[in-house]
Amino acid sequence: MRLSRYFLPVLKETPSEAQIVSHRYMLRAGMIKQAQAGIYSWLPLGFKVLKRIEQIVHEEQERAGHIPLLMPTLQSADLWRESGRYDDYGEEMLRITDRHGRDMLYGPTNEELITDIFRSHVSSYKDLPLTLYHIQWKFRDEVRPRFGVMRGREFLMKDGYNFDLTKEAALHAYNRHLVSYLRTYERMGLQAIPMRADSGPIGGDDTHEFLVLADTGESEVFYDSAVTDLTFGDRAIDYDSVEECAGIMREFTEKYARTDETHDEAKFNEIPEERRRVARGIEVGQIFYFGTKYSEAMGATVQGPDGKPTPVHMGSHGIGVSRLLGAIIEASHDDKGIIWPEGVTPFHVGIVNLKQGDAEADGACEGLETALINAGLDPLYDDRKERAGGKFATMDLIGLPWRITVGPRGLKNGVVELTSRRTGESEEMAPEAAVARLVEIYAKHL
Amino acid sequence: MRLSRYFLPVLKETPSEAQIVSHRYMLRAGMIKQAQAGIYSWLPLGFKVLKRIEQIVHEEQERAGHIPLLMPTLQSADLWRESGRYDDYGEEMLRITDRHGRDMLYGPTNEELITDIFRSHVSSYKDLPLTLYHIQWKFRDEVRPRFGVMRGREFLMKDGYNFDLTKEAALHAYNRHLVSYLRTYERMGLQAIPMRADSGPIGGDDTHEFLVLADTGESEVFYDSAVTDLTFGDRAIDYDSVEECAGIMREFTEKYARTDETHDEAKFNEIPEERRRVARGIEVGQIFYFGTKYSEAMGATVQGPDGKPTPVHMGSHGIGVSRLLGAIIEASHDDKGIIWPEGVTPFHVGIVNLKQGDAEADGACEGLETALINAGLDPLYDDRKERAGGKFATMDLIGLPWRITVGPRGLKNGVVELTSRRTGESEEMAPEAAVARLVEIYAKHL
Repeated sequence: MRLSRYFLPVLKETPSEAQIVSHRYMLRAGMIKQAQAGIYSWLPLGFKVLKRIEQIVHEEQERAGHIPLLMPTLQSADLWRESGRYDDYGEEMLRITDRHGRDMLYGPTNEELITDIFRSHVSSYKDLPLTLYHIQWKFRDEVRPRFGVMRGREFLMKDGYNFDLTKEAALHAYNRHLVSYLRTYERMGLQAIPMRADSGPIGGDDTHEFLVLADTGESEVFYDSAVTDLTFGDRAIDYDSVEECAGIMREFTEKYARTDETHDEAKFNEIPEERRRVARGIEVGQIFYFGTKYSEAMGATVQGPDGKPTPVHMGSHGIGVSRLLGAIIEASHDDKGIIWPEGVTPFHVGIVNLKQGDAEADGACEGLETALINAGLDPLYDDRKERAGGKFATMDLIGLPWRITVGPRGLKNGVVELTSRRTGESEEMAPEAAVARLVEIYAKHL
Repeated sequence: MRLSRYFLPVLKETPSEAQIVSHRYMLRAGMIKQAQAGIYSWLPLGFKVLKRIEQIVHEEQERAGHIPLLMPTLQSADLWRESGRYDDYGEEMLRITDRHGRDMLYGPTNEELITDIFRSHVSSYKDLPLTLYHIQWKFRDEVRPRFGVMRGREFLMKDGYNFDLTKEAALHAYNRHLVSYLRTYERMGLQAIPMRADSGPIGGDDTHEFLVLADTGESEVFYDSAVTDLTFGDRAIDYDSVEECAGIMREFTEKYARTDETHDEAKFNEIPEERRRVARGIEVGQIFYFGTKYSEAMGATVQGPDGKPTPVHMGSHGIGVSRLLGAIIEASHDDKGIIWPEGVTPFHVGIVNLKQGDAEADGACEGLETALINAGLDPLYDDRKERAGGKFATMDLIGLPWRITVGPRGLKNGVVELTSRRTGESEEMAPEAAVARLVEIYAKHL
């Protein structure tokens, strides 16, 4: 993409309404624009990151054998009356009346709708196990929306639902989700720690939240520092293996890690003192097993192997897709701007032309752009007639992990400069070497 | 994908509420499920086609230099008061009040919101031309929703908006959209004819609708049969070339083609009688140039080359993404089910195992599945223990363009059968030859 043809409205001033760094940088980098309180337009750069995150979530869910579909944003109130949640949900539910006077709502979550789909189409245990998920916009009418996309009203979420014949099978689905979520967050460059949590209005016994450590997190968290040494890495997973998923579940949850809602001071004090940590965290996902709560209320039964109708065991599992942009920025930035992890960066590399209009510099930049595109990478070429300082500041603000700087002086020696946004370190090399290096860096992200 | 692990709830019975063939087949093929009147859940098969269509739209828009972003589904009533449309829009607008009593609405279109984004961030003619678009769910509270996704209330639409300094530049944007839409529809296997149309509530002078000929179309159309001979084909386009885009515009619109709204009997009668056609059509897109209507009402001006504030010339351009599924099925089906064009099919090929459980047949199917996936194709393997007749009926209903049938008898001779859904013709060949043939068929669609 040529920056001269792109729509990247960066702001020089720090908007006064933004209280946290991710909100400030998303506004300043031209990623979002507030449409109303808690509702945002995703400008091109923000939309691009949102799509990359969505794509990673899809890939990891499909890898785990979960099946994508798409439920609508608006739901019938009647379904929520069946489960009893229409009256219970409170003012965060956006209630709507259509032209015929029918009660609807903007879905804050989808247990009722997915259970209705299930009970309409599945009648035998032979069709289980089944996990369906979607990534869809949801609405919660927060009384005080704030922190940008971190606590918006209209937000994008992945929510998945498993249907199983027995509790044991449903707990395997639970573990499968835990594993797939660990992979998902790691691909985004995030360490998200599963912590035993409180089930809240969805109900249920088993639930873990995934928290990213950040000073601006909304939750206080207590954990054994050994949990931060765990990484999922490149291990191959057989998602059908009950033992393998259970083993990873144990590995990542046996050490103490809890939010303030479930914190147990006595257990915490059993950790060696030097490993006890109290910090703040941002919730980026949650998994639940809630048994037959919805299947019984809504009649989602299958014929079991014994011929008898059996309510299915369910769980629901969510990832805050739009919120993740905020969480990633909170976890990865400096005083110049965002630092995108390679897995989610909107463009793989920025090209800065130090002397726009100079035939040699322009030609070298265009050659680099073409070579990068041909190698499957997605560069952003700053081809504006701007001072070098302004170009560098924009690149630092929008946070592309790599920058290639092209100028007449270097070109005389046949070199360009490749700079890491994270370390600030630069290295001179031939243009082809820079392309080769970037191909290597991004190999596992393409 | 293995069918035994997929969620494909096909129906044997024809649902009584479905009046047109696309609605019937989408329900029977397990593509959609009605959630409420005019609001659908997209079951896995339907969602997959929807994503393919969305992807084609994105690719062709980006090829034309148009920039994707994403505006929210809910909008502030205040913006619509500025344009004057809040009161004008009538009962099709779904009006919503939030917990603080603020008026909102579920966006039926986005002229106001995009104009607000533009005026907030663009102030100089140097930032023009600019075309922004998004693909987002919209809502129109139709009094009588019907025909499935063809006339739903919650529907997915691509809408794009161009901002230009002059009328001439805006008309180039108009032509660019016309060209990119022609390419888009052709990639989906559709012939969509641009017809001079009426501008309706959006306002404006220049507008064309794109119509797919189908007996169930909602519009009566009148055209010169010579327009159906036009194809876009593989021609390379320079979207920056004003002449090239204008030439294609002329080529595709100079022959008579109008809907009943703009039909001119006298002009129609100038066509040689044997080329006069009266038929029905389904609208799948529309392009508008409406000048400064919104930019003047909402103060979207830029500083012109003369230093004076100039309201920008705008147009808006839409493709009915979810509606396209219905239109494609209306245009491409037989009495056994859907016949997907290769460009949008949910799976590239179905594999039917005639003797599930037979080691040799199972092994051959698994080998084919792996070979197809390794070749970049997406097969659906029917590995259920069902009669061959049932498997064939399902494949015919869901409409995959190609089927490979694997049975012990063929395997003895080292062959499988490759069958075209469209022609019904089968050919025996070695499994590797079938894979190679499919790779060739899909080469231009991957």
